[in-house]
Amino acid sequence: VELELLAQLKAIATDPAARGLNDDVAVLGDLVLTHDMLVEGVHFLPSDPPEDVAWKLVAVNLSDLASKGATPIAILLGAGLPRGGTWASAFVAGIGLAVQAFGVPLIGGDTVAMPGGAPVTLGLTAIGRSDGPIPSRAGAAAGDALYVAGVIGDAGLGLSIAKGERAGHPDLLNAYRRPVPLIETGRALSASVTAMMDVSDGLLIDAARIAQASGIALEIDLDTIPLSKAAQMMGGNDDAARLAAATAGDDYALLFTASRPLPTAPCRVARIGQAVRGEGLHLYNRDGPVALPERLGWLHG
Amino acid sequence: VELELLAQLKAIATDPAARGLNDDVAVLGDLVLTHDMLVEGVHFLPSDPPEDVAWKLVAVNLSDLASKGATPIAILLGAGLPRGGTWASAFVAGIGLAVQAFGVPLIGGDTVAMPGGAPVTLGLTAIGRSDGPIPSRAGAAAGDALYVAGVIGDAGLGLSIAKGERAGHPDLLNAYRRPVPLIETGRALSASVTAMMDVSDGLLIDAARIAQASGIALEIDLDTIPLSKAAQMMGGNDDAARLAAATAGDDYALLFTASRPLPTAPCRVARIGQAVRGEGLHLYNRDGPVALPERLGWLHG
Repeated sequence: VELELLAQLKAIATDPAARGLNDDVAVLGDLVLTHDMLVEGVHFLPSDPPEDVAWKLVAVNLSDLASKGATPIAILLGAGLPRGGTWASAFVAGIGLAVQAFGVPLIGGDTVAMPGGAPVTLGLTAIGRSDGPIPSRAGAAAGDALYVAGVIGDAGLGLSIAKGERAGHPDLLNAYRRPVPLIETGRALSASVTAMMDVSDGLLIDAARIAQASGIALEIDLDTIPLSKAAQMMGGNDDAARLAAATAGDDYALLFTASRPLPTAPCRVARIGQAVRGEGLHLYNRDGPVALPERLGWLHG
Repeated sequence: VELELLAQLKAIATDPAARGLNDDVAVLGDLVLTHDMLVEGVHFLPSDPPEDVAWKLVAVNLSDLASKGATPIAILLGAGLPRGGTWASAFVAGIGLAVQAFGVPLIGGDTVAMPGGAPVTLGLTAIGRSDGPIPSRAGAAAGDALYVAGVIGDAGLGLSIAKGERAGHPDLLNAYRRPVPLIETGRALSASVTAMMDVSDGLLIDAARIAQASGIALEIDLDTIPLSKAAQMMGGNDDAARLAAATAGDDYALLFTASRPLPTAPCRVARIGQAVRGEGLHLYNRDGPVALPERLGWLHG
């Protein structure tokens, strides 16, 4: 049904600014706009600290701007919060922290006290400005190299720590609860890439989206997927660990293709494969082809 | 608690674009931005048709732009919808109708299938552009006349029809379910007003907000509050009926002050009072002062 709804929405969103609803953002002149939601029990755990939920709400939206090379200029908040109690005020305090940390002003929005028992339901509109090209998912061509900026899999391991399932380095929990959008990196790279998006639902599913939008296939070398030291210590670095990382989501790394040498970026950039003729994803490691896992990432909703 | 939260948010939203969170909209250069939410069971009835809820979501946000004289240029939708079923697709169809009717493109957003039993939770960001002054709530001065564009009370009567409490003209139900933002009227008036806002929570409570923001008192002549014929047929037009209309909310009329003659507006404009020194509201009718009702309007949340 989600796909049917999306098709229905795409039929409505015919303005070029909507980019066909295929691109995480809308583009109005030099403005880049995005609106992502977080719902309790769907996108975050009821036990997640409200300050962290607020941080994440801001971060995931700024990550969409980062993936388009845009500089955030403002946010508007739509927050359905529990009536009374301390959750709501801790959440708003977290918005204050994020606004300060990312240097982006809160300029408006709406708050509603939700009916009793209803999940916390959050939306945020982030507005950015770009003075250069605004990459889409659709520009990759056969022959382009495929890269990741940032690391993959930390947040997935952090989620299992948050759930109390496993133990691991606090940095991993932090990667899940307080992701950092790669704004400077996105800005540094945006003029040099052929396609770019942030890795929100999982490296593989997001790579498949670039492949589909661009009409090419992507070959991905599992061995080159950048895992942090903390992730390798907790989860290992064999094929299974790398497949888990590549399908876990919530990373907010940047995934992009380029046909030319890259400028220096403020964070680690790893080449993980290339675009070739065809469609879909092809995984391999040093020994040859690796079968695609059944689930490529998260499909919320 | 809502007031405490709002104070907490105001302490964060210190950028001038936020207008202190006192003004329904944010202003970024010539852009006017707003984000209002509608939550099932708070702002609309579970029995309201999903197409109408969609219409209303768009209309209430465009009404905020109208009250600032801005022309809508785009909307982004954040929709927490029931999984599966027909509600979600009827809702999206309603968004399509509204987008067409108001000529404003849907350019992005997010949809989430809500957990079972959770209320439908909707947010919409509307972006407008203004080529003139953008009135606030704070510009009224003693001596200004107070006006309403549009009619007051139709939607409140329509709500009682929707609830099955009373019978009345279908136009009244329509005013509740399908309000029409006064975009042309707002644009025609915005350069001539000293303060302007839309009447969303009730004429009296919204007038009190202008009075407070402007540091003046408003005198309102109950007899001059514009009621439609259908409203007078259903609810009468004595003081009680007029007080009910003035506190009912959901009207999306424009409430404004001006010190000069007004240009011609595309819809009915009624002078209902004036600004004087002091604070708060003073009601009167042809016989003299009328006591303020205890409740001035709706305070959601």
